[in-house]
Amino acid sequence: MKFTIQRDRFVESLQDVMKAVSSRTTIPILTGVKLLVTDEGVTLTGSDSDISIETIIPKIEDEHVIVEIERTGSIVLQARFFNDIIRKLPEDTVMIEVKDNLQTFIKSGNAEFSINGLDAEEYPRLPQIEEEEVYKLPTDLLKAMIRQTVFAVSTSETRPILTGVHWRIEKNELTCVATDSHRLAWRKAPLESDLNHSHSVVIPGKSLNELNKILDDSQDLIEMVLTQNQILFKTKNLLFFSRLLEGNYPDTSRLIPNESKTDVILNAKEFLQAIDRASLLAREGRNNVVKFSTIGNESVEISSDSPEIGRVVEIVQTQSITGEELKISFSGKYLMDALKAIDSAEIKISFTGAMRPFVLRSIDNDFILQLILPVRTF
Amino acid sequence: MKFTIQRDRFVESLQDVMKAVSSRTTIPILTGVKLLVTDEGVTLTGSDSDISIETIIPKIEDEHVIVEIERTGSIVLQARFFNDIIRKLPEDTVMIEVKDNLQTFIKSGNAEFSINGLDAEEYPRLPQIEEEEVYKLPTDLLKAMIRQTVFAVSTSETRPILTGVHWRIEKNELTCVATDSHRLAWRKAPLESDLNHSHSVVIPGKSLNELNKILDDSQDLIEMVLTQNQILFKTKNLLFFSRLLEGNYPDTSRLIPNESKTDVILNAKEFLQAIDRASLLAREGRNNVVKFSTIGNESVEISSDSPEIGRVVEIVQTQSITGEELKISFSGKYLMDALKAIDSAEIKISFTGAMRPFVLRSIDNDFILQLILPVRTF
Repeated sequence: MKFTIQRDRFVESLQDVMKAVSSRTTIPILTGVKLLVTDEGVTLTGSDSDISIETIIPKIEDEHVIVEIERTGSIVLQARFFNDIIRKLPEDTVMIEVKDNLQTFIKSGNAEFSINGLDAEEYPRLPQIEEEEVYKLPTDLLKAMIRQTVFAVSTSETRPILTGVHWRIEKNELTCVATDSHRLAWRKAPLESDLNHSHSVVIPGKSLNELNKILDDSQDLIEMVLTQNQILFKTKNLLFFSRLLEGNYPDTSRLIPNESKTDVILNAKEFLQAIDRASLLAREGRNNVVKFSTIGNESVEISSDSPEIGRVVEIVQTQSITGEELKISFSGKYLMDALKAIDSAEIKISFTGAMRPFVLRSIDNDFILQLILPVRTF
Repeated sequence: MKFTIQRDRFVESLQDVMKAVSSRTTIPILTGVKLLVTDEGVTLTGSDSDISIETIIPKIEDEHVIVEIERTGSIVLQARFFNDIIRKLPEDTVMIEVKDNLQTFIKSGNAEFSINGLDAEEYPRLPQIEEEEVYKLPTDLLKAMIRQTVFAVSTSETRPILTGVHWRIEKNELTCVATDSHRLAWRKAPLESDLNHSHSVVIPGKSLNELNKILDDSQDLIEMVLTQNQILFKTKNLLFFSRLLEGNYPDTSRLIPNESKTDVILNAKEFLQAIDRASLLAREGRNNVVKFSTIGNESVEISSDSPEIGRVVEIVQTQSITGEELKISFSGKYLMDALKAIDSAEIKISFTGAMRPFVLRSIDNDFILQLILPVRTF
């Protein structure tokens, strides 16, 4: 194996692959990154066995020569070192050559590294996925859907299935749901495919967070392929594999109330900032509890207190309040998370009483919904 | 106590004072910040008993009204909360009023906080310093002198005196020295004062680091007042007090060699980057050891190896090499620290043998010197 590559482009791909490499793995070879050089270009692979990432650097890109290949082959190199070395090399190009005994030479300008490699044959194979059913959606939409749901997954391993986001594909529509049993995030979007199959899978929250870090905010379509225990996301030069969580996701559709007794419409930003201030004191108490009371038909009072520190109270003007008077308490943090996820100028909150879950929606569309369980205090 | 203040200006001063407040203090009132309102303006004080910071916000600044005072007085408020509250308030101004029982009201727009204060009479008094002898130097020069020496203080408490920087004032010249007994940083500068006294004090490295964070890079003169056990730094609206370390600082003047056997002049940036690369492998071994060998009169070889990872070697061109041939080993980290501190395009390194300390200087001036002890490997 011997090739010369544009260093910037190499660093970029290496950075993506590094996101799958963990230093805390029980399989030593997975602390490495695999390089595979073929006549087409260089493929990099990183994996922590839950997530695997593969990037392809073609020989020529946008009419520029990126890689010059002298000899094909493959090697596995210690990922952290290799990445640090490549980043710190002095010149714009770097030459990499595997010699005898897996010894790998890295040369750029006057700097010459010789590092010990591992046999690429011993690197685990990535899952082979038949690409029969390919779903597509714009990358920026996928990123938004992940961001708007993944924060609500459970961080506790007591019910492992809740650490994932439930994805349902039905009638060419994707619905994402996450819940930690105290709140629930729900997001829906149409798919750009013409398949009439149904799927129901649970993707680890961690995988979705990593995927979101790697993807650029572009309108290019991203491809998704589903199997029994893996999902593959595919862009032009990147393959992202994640294992799926095993088990049945709870039926969450019954949790969302159909009716409401009090509806409040208000400016999301003003409300968020008031909750943020109230949370300063609420944080100290247990559960981060903020109190919310309607005042007539025009405003709400947000308050919070902590015996040690003091008390905060704030009146927030609303667009409208319809229905019954209400006093309710909830986690300030959950409410802020929900408001940030909805990301709309005006929001509608629908309550069905002080002890029942309440729902936040954008007033502009019904593609997103956030549900929060109240806390008993009044 | 009752006043209304421009929030931005208040946040700025509060931020400075917060640098002295520690949450890990054994004196509970020091988790608070003291507000003192007089007819002149508002004074904020924070302290962890080693460092104390006082900022003064005048009623009028640059012809703008900053504070409107209705009633003078004083209070101590929980620093972290108070700072968070002020930062998150909705309007450009904030009104603060102390009512009965030290209850303090904070109001900005529709947001109203009521927090529990502490009696300002119980807050420790700051040291009273007679300002008889005031030394002055430009703020940016002071910042440079701190940056160029403080990194070399010892982080171990086995010899507490070495955790400080030794300042000597003699003949209107300030000399700063720091050493952790493996390397030494030395910096000298003239003072803008006309006093003929001598002083020798040791300032905790931590205090100098905090001071450096607070000071702006300006050419305004900063005033310094020294007493037996305190040093006071004084700018227009800020007082920074630090206790001094007790004990005698070792005589370091004899450590610096007067002669040299090998002198190497080279480009600092190229050398720094080569050492940085060699350190990638050196980091894994003990002591971060990098090897350095002269090759003829024109270049040096930098190398490092780690049995597990591999080997790196790099040739660096020099401006000149005079004197004896040399092979020496040293800590890559110490050398990088020294090169960054000298901050000069061209540097001269003077060696007196593979087992003796060597000295790095700027070729442009003799105000700064860095000394490093080698490591035995060859």
